[in-house]
Amino acid sequence: MKIEAVDFFYLAMPVVTDEADGSQDALLVRVAGGGGHVGWGECEASPLVSIAAFVCPMSHGVCRPVADAVLGQRLDGPGDIARIAAAVEYDSMDLLQAVHTFSGVEIALWDLLGRVRGEPIWRMLAYDASHQKLPYASVLFGETPQETLERAKVSRANRFRAGKFGWGPIGRADPATDRDHFMAAREGLGPDGILLVDVGQIFIEDVEAAATRLPALEEAGALWLEEPFQASALEAYGALARRSQKVKLAGGEGAHNIHMARHLIDFGGVGFIQIDTGRIGGIGPAKRVADYAAAKGAAFVNHTFTSHLALSASLQPYAGLKEHRICEYPFAPKPLALEFTRNHLERDADGEIAAPNAPGHGIEIEPAGVRKYLVDAEIRVAGRTLYRTPAID
Amino acid sequence: MKIEAVDFFYLAMPVVTDEADGSQDALLVRVAGGGGHVGWGECEASPLVSIAAFVCPMSHGVCRPVADAVLGQRLDGPGDIARIAAAVEYDSMDLLQAVHTFSGVEIALWDLLGRVRGEPIWRMLAYDASHQKLPYASVLFGETPQETLERAKVSRANRFRAGKFGWGPIGRADPATDRDHFMAAREGLGPDGILLVDVGQIFIEDVEAAATRLPALEEAGALWLEEPFQASALEAYGALARRSQKVKLAGGEGAHNIHMARHLIDFGGVGFIQIDTGRIGGIGPAKRVADYAAAKGAAFVNHTFTSHLALSASLQPYAGLKEHRICEYPFAPKPLALEFTRNHLERDADGEIAAPNAPGHGIEIEPAGVRKYLVDAEIRVAGRTLYRTPAID
Repeated sequence: MKIEAVDFFYLAMPVVTDEADGSQDALLVRVAGGGGHVGWGECEASPLVSIAAFVCPMSHGVCRPVADAVLGQRLDGPGDIARIAAAVEYDSMDLLQAVHTFSGVEIALWDLLGRVRGEPIWRMLAYDASHQKLPYASVLFGETPQETLERAKVSRANRFRAGKFGWGPIGRADPATDRDHFMAAREGLGPDGILLVDVGQIFIEDVEAAATRLPALEEAGALWLEEPFQASALEAYGALARRSQKVKLAGGEGAHNIHMARHLIDFGGVGFIQIDTGRIGGIGPAKRVADYAAAKGAAFVNHTFTSHLALSASLQPYAGLKEHRICEYPFAPKPLALEFTRNHLERDADGEIAAPNAPGHGIEIEPAGVRKYLVDAEIRVAGRTLYRTPAID
Repeated sequence: MKIEAVDFFYLAMPVVTDEADGSQDALLVRVAGGGGHVGWGECEASPLVSIAAFVCPMSHGVCRPVADAVLGQRLDGPGDIARIAAAVEYDSMDLLQAVHTFSGVEIALWDLLGRVRGEPIWRMLAYDASHQKLPYASVLFGETPQETLERAKVSRANRFRAGKFGWGPIGRADPATDRDHFMAAREGLGPDGILLVDVGQIFIEDVEAAATRLPALEEAGALWLEEPFQASALEAYGALARRSQKVKLAGGEGAHNIHMARHLIDFGGVGFIQIDTGRIGGIGPAKRVADYAAAKGAAFVNHTFTSHLALSASLQPYAGLKEHRICEYPFAPKPLALEFTRNHLERDADGEIAAPNAPGHGIEIEPAGVRKYLVDAEIRVAGRTLYRTPAID
């Protein structure tokens, strides 16, 4: 088939706050392949800027809008998706935002292809099975250790066997206060819970400051310390990894190409590589990172803080890797992230989930949910309307 | 003073083609500090997308528009610029385009500060002098070796002692044809000319394909081979660097943070690190790369394919490094890149240039040139106009 249309839907909560909650807005992508066939994807990035990168005028031969490499292309198999991805990477090399935009388009291409073929995406990735994953609840640290304790208890009461605590006050006060938070999280999760800690790049590239938190993390039995540094601070990652005994480093959500992920494994020494298919260029490059991680003894983990469409898309790349067990699960997203899909990846009796055994990514769009949060946007250049929010039936 | 306003001016040639010529459009930034003081900068990136990254609605706490970290801030010294840059880096960490946008803003902040103080930017960077640089003409390879020869002759006839030939057919045909181009360039430059070759990432990460071109490059006496691979393909760079005897690798124009540049030096083994202040976040981070390169025995080179404003801004970070001699010089940019500035960095009797000994970057804006190429653009979200092309007096 031929790619006939690509439409972007920018959704947002009525009020967007400065908390580190990525589910406050969303950018949905619908790709039409003719004959009524459509696929859906989601970008995990600024909606307005990502739309602009699809429709912008060409600046020169390798600073072209993403649309140029996508519209009108053939889509008959996974090889076509790889070919289109390579064209975007080369023809838009000077357009930094391009990969964030294309990520959602790429997911929609896989979904479209899978629906036409009646196959799950993970099967098109040559996996035989979609294995169960153990979800962790992603929550923010409380402002006080007592709040952190309460949130951990809520997570446990909601049948989560693993919990990740992130951002909030960690790294902003002294190590002793941080320790109180780590221990509160441990207490709330119970002795057998898997404790994960995410500090959101707070230490920039200050290895010493991060290292002072290691003893408390070890005492609390944390499995990983996530994003102590800026996404590209490989030397800092590597130095801290060499100083940590039991606590492994995790990172990679900021990776916007496979090289960045590989460098985090090879030079940064991370034990867990966390990939957001909505940022790295979609499912294809995420699968290549999963293969690389498996070969290097690192564990692949999805990064997902938004919808169940994004969740399914982010499980596909490692659905068939049985030993890579842990997955991120958006525990308490904003209503929009739940309402624009009709179905959700509900946890089973063991509290586990798996990428659906259904065509494409297996998540259905709920048009009423899209309409409810749809943001009206328009971009005009030199008298031409390059983008206007489309209608959805 | 306080940063009172930031305005973007999107310029474009009436027709933009797919040649690899970055001077076909431009994004100018004007920062107003009150009391009639203004500074000017230039982003080297897609104008529409970069504007969107300044004005977009916040997605969450670390996906904020660049404007949030800039407008209303104090600007009394270089430390304020570094503080604002750190805020952009952290608060917009999930907005990929942010650094491309901020690069032009940052240059304008230095210019504003320099004009208020009556100091050149290079002096505010603690350099004692602005040393002469040896410019090379950047031209594209011809479609045939004969065309390449003609272009090299033109470059020499224009008093360039160094010439860089880029893109075009190299890497698309067989190594023998590429050799003909290299030898034609050498013939046209003359035996004492400095020959530089830029292949624009054509080999993606194929080390063997790139290595087959090394003997001919050596035969032609090329000083460097630029961007054989994707900007992040550090392993490929490193592998090729180890296999090259005389020809050094050059790269870095795609670096959008100092880490990427450092990794190219440390892991990629480049001998020349090429930094575009309009992409890496501005003059501050480029200066940090220059310091790092000097310490590691690599040479710093500017990347500039656009205006003389961008040229001056890109010379500042290594103006005081006497041994770092070579500079890129936009030899035949499109008219817009020449017409929106009143003055230009003309070459002296020896064919050399230097960062001006004048306040700021020393380049003055020509309003008539801005008006001539100004593109009308408008961005509206949820009923509000977030951007509309401003007027220029």
